[in-house]
Amino acid sequence: MPEVLIHMVEGRTPDQKKALLQKTTQAVVESLDVKPEQVTVQIVESKADAKSKGGILFSER
Amino acid sequence: MPEVLIHMVEGRTPDQKKALLQKTTQAVVESLDVKPEQVTVQIVESKADAKSKGGILFSER
Amino acid sequence: MPEVLIHMVEGRTPDQKKALLQKTTQAVVESLDVKPEQVTVQIVESKADAKSKGGILFSER
Amino acid sequence: MPEVLIHMVEGRTPDQKKALLQKTTQAVVESLDVKPEQVTVQIVESKADAKSKGGILFSER
Amino acid sequence: MPEVLIHMVEGRTPDQKKALLQKTTQAVVESLDVKPEQVTVQIVESKADAKSKGGILFSER
Amino acid sequence: MPEVLIHMVEGRTPDQKKALLQKTTQAVVESLDVKPEQVTVQIVESKADAKSKGGILFSER
Repeated sequence: MPEVLIHMVEGRTPDQKKALLQKTTQAVVESLDVKPEQVTVQIVESKADAKSKGGILFSER
Repeated sequence: MPEVLIHMVEGRTPDQKKALLQKTTQAVVESLDVKPEQVTVQIVESKADAKSKGGILFSER
Repeated sequence: MPEVLIHMVEGRTPDQKKALLQKTTQAVVESLDVKPEQVTVQIVESKADAKSKGGILFSER
Repeated sequence: MPEVLIHMVEGRTPDQKKALLQKTTQAVVESLDVKPEQVTVQIVESKADAKSKGGILFSER
Repeated sequence: MPEVLIHMVEGRTPDQKKALLQKTTQAVVESLDVKPEQVTVQIVESKADAKSKGGILFSER
Repeated sequence: MPEVLIHMVEGRTPDQKKALLQKTTQAVVESLDVKPEQVTVQIVESKADAKSKGGILFSER
């Protein structure tokens, strides 16, 4: 605890996702003074045609 | 803000998903009097054998 | 099915929330050709100091 | 109502996922005294390189 | 891992919520053959006027 | 995009929550090379009797 969910479109590289998981864990550890093993982070990815901002699909940007 | 997550089983057509993203954005804009670009909508899809209603898998309906 | 979660800051009026729930349900019904009673919508509200955009808390905007 | 989301890494067998969906439904029915058809359960899976615990990716465990 | 989120309307008794948390944990342990301490369950509650099914608010049912 | 949800028990101080929102935003910006204003973070809090780990409620730890 806590559990972090990061919602985004597919397409990031493995290195970017690894950095995201590790830096987010560190952010939680530093802010809440918890141990790293208490923190889970999951990236919930969707295809670009399954996400929009302002009604514009990420596959059409 | 706000951020909308729509959880459903895989299988809808790209046109259905596009209509869902755009109509949901419009619903939020009209209800909360916010600008479209403030609204993100993400469809979180799962396989039919990873979702159930009443204990019955969508792959067995 | 589907299930919609709308994440936002507290503070909207009951009428705005009712309109949001009903218009979002209608958006899903029209897009996916499902019956209204198949659609659940939940508004997940947080206090203004528990949400940020661009690192700026909604309580400080 | 209620709607259950189970976040985990890909890789479980269809039988394990079926058991998870059915046992979770039963747990909700027994605890809250609701009918099974009121309960939806969705497993939200991510790849092993998109999830971490303690900053360690599940693909590196 | 895994992490379970249960979305529902406010109003259940502490005993019902405790039973829900414990029975859901047991369901996950039995289905996926994981240790109990690997499983977190969080009930995400909303007010009855912030949730609907079929476009009808739970506060108006 | 992306949108981050952090699920945890109530009880943290406003300063801890502010640090959590800001450090998480920074982690996403650095990892994915996006602008801060593209990143929303929402803390989804539950009461201690509405969350468990290993079947033990946070209100009983």
